Amino acid sequence: MGLSRLSDQFHRHLVASSAFSEDDREAVYRAIMTRRDVRDQFLDDPVPDDVLQRLLQAAHAAPSVGFMQPWNFIVVRSAERREAVWQAFSRANDEAAAMFADEQQARYRSLKLEGIRKAPVGICITCDPDRAGPLVLGRTHNARMDSYSTVCAVQNMWLAARAEGIGIGWVSIFHQQDLRDILGIPESIEIIGWFCLGYVDALYDQPELAIKGWRQRLPLEQLVFDEAWGRSRG
Amino acid sequence: MGLSRLSDQFHRHLVASSAFSEDDREAVYRAIMTRRDVRDQFLDDPVPDDVLQRLLQAAHAAPSVGFMQPWNFIVVRSAERREAVWQAFSRANDEAAAMFADEQQARYRSLKLEGIRKAPVGICITCDPDRAGPLVLGRTHNARMDSYSTVCAVQNMWLAARAEGIGIGWVSIFHQQDLRDILGIPESIEIIGWFCLGYVDALYDQPELAIKGWRQRLPLEQLVFDEAWGRSRG
Repeated sequence: MGLSRLSDQFHRHLVASSAFSEDDREAVYRAIMTRRDVRDQFLDDPVPDDVLQRLLQAAHAAPSVGFMQPWNFIVVRSAERREAVWQAFSRANDEAAAMFADEQQARYRSLKLEGIRKAPVGICITCDPDRAGPLVLGRTHNARMDSYSTVCAVQNMWLAARAEGIGIGWVSIFHQQDLRDILGIPESIEIIGWFCLGYVDALYDQPELAIKGWRQRLPLEQLVFDEAWGRSRG
Repeated sequence: MGLSRLSDQFHRHLVASSAFSEDDREAVYRAIMTRRDVRDQFLDDPVPDDVLQRLLQAAHAAPSVGFMQPWNFIVVRSAERREAVWQAFSRANDEAAAMFADEQQARYRSLKLEGIRKAPVGICITCDPDRAGPLVLGRTHNARMDSYSTVCAVQNMWLAARAEGIGIGWVSIFHQQDLRDILGIPESIEIIGWFCLGYVDALYDQPELAIKGWRQRLPLEQLVFDEAWGRSRG
């Protein structure tokens, strides 16, 4: 097949893709702006399989380096297993708290940082660096691109969940070996995070750590540079 | 202030947050499912500052570990600077192509993997691990959480762009030092990626690497486990 035929063949796959209507655009921004990292607002209501499947399909639609799709999703509903995960969190979190000094430690200990037992569903999301063999298009000059792809899947799932009325909280305070042991995850697989999922009927109007005085929103204009590092915009 | 007063104070910040209407939910899924990694469909049309600002606000609304907001955005419109970035890509991409053997190398070389010069806007997105000091809530047991937060910002921006009719392509094939030199990025700052942005009026109906035969979509059911690694559902 000549190159021009190939080119025509690809062209068939181009579809009109303009901006969304104003209403649809606002819906996308609303998901982005009202999404929260949920630790305590989970309701008991079970998450139906078909809803969970939509969230996983959203995750699976993420971009991935070399289209390697390195992610896996371990869906945990068992209360016993979530209890074991919580115990692992709790041990690591005690270590974490002890790293902070004095008043900051007291403040740290007052924060609820997970909903592992309260949320009816936990998902461990992992990255398999060997999913597409050792040589991956786009990973040749940045070895972390596979885990970054998996994080794109996380954020897709998080935003879809917001639209479904489901809250998600990312828990990162674990010794990875504890999660490996509880979930039987092989050594070659990177653990990206544990995610608590459950229906919510209320969310904070700002990030919880801002509301609780841990750290405030930075002004966006300080974070945007023009043409080179450190040059603020006119 | 007693704890109960504090608790009431936080409660004031909880707002009703149920599922979106079916139309709004579909808009969110449409952004997720039709978003593409764009390399060649960029139009010349300039991206207005107010639209770019909305995309950056979407990025800035991402979750971040310990609310550290480690991201910076270097917005590059200068054709000369984009040319320098393209030269850096081009050198790295020649190295990358040489890593692939025979037919796969020919196929690699036939792919257009960037739109650095064609897209009117480039954004280099970076992660500052020192943004909130050495000790960060939630990063104590996973040192990569700051870069993962920055990737969540990337994906927020990408989905908002889809709703705005703007395509984005992630370019990862660089020696980081080249981008540091061109953009004046300090050594302490991690470069997450270079992103090409521009209006599009057509996108591929599947990931471009699938259409062009590089690698196909994996069945989602192979990637989802029940309760533990390797246990397939149902």
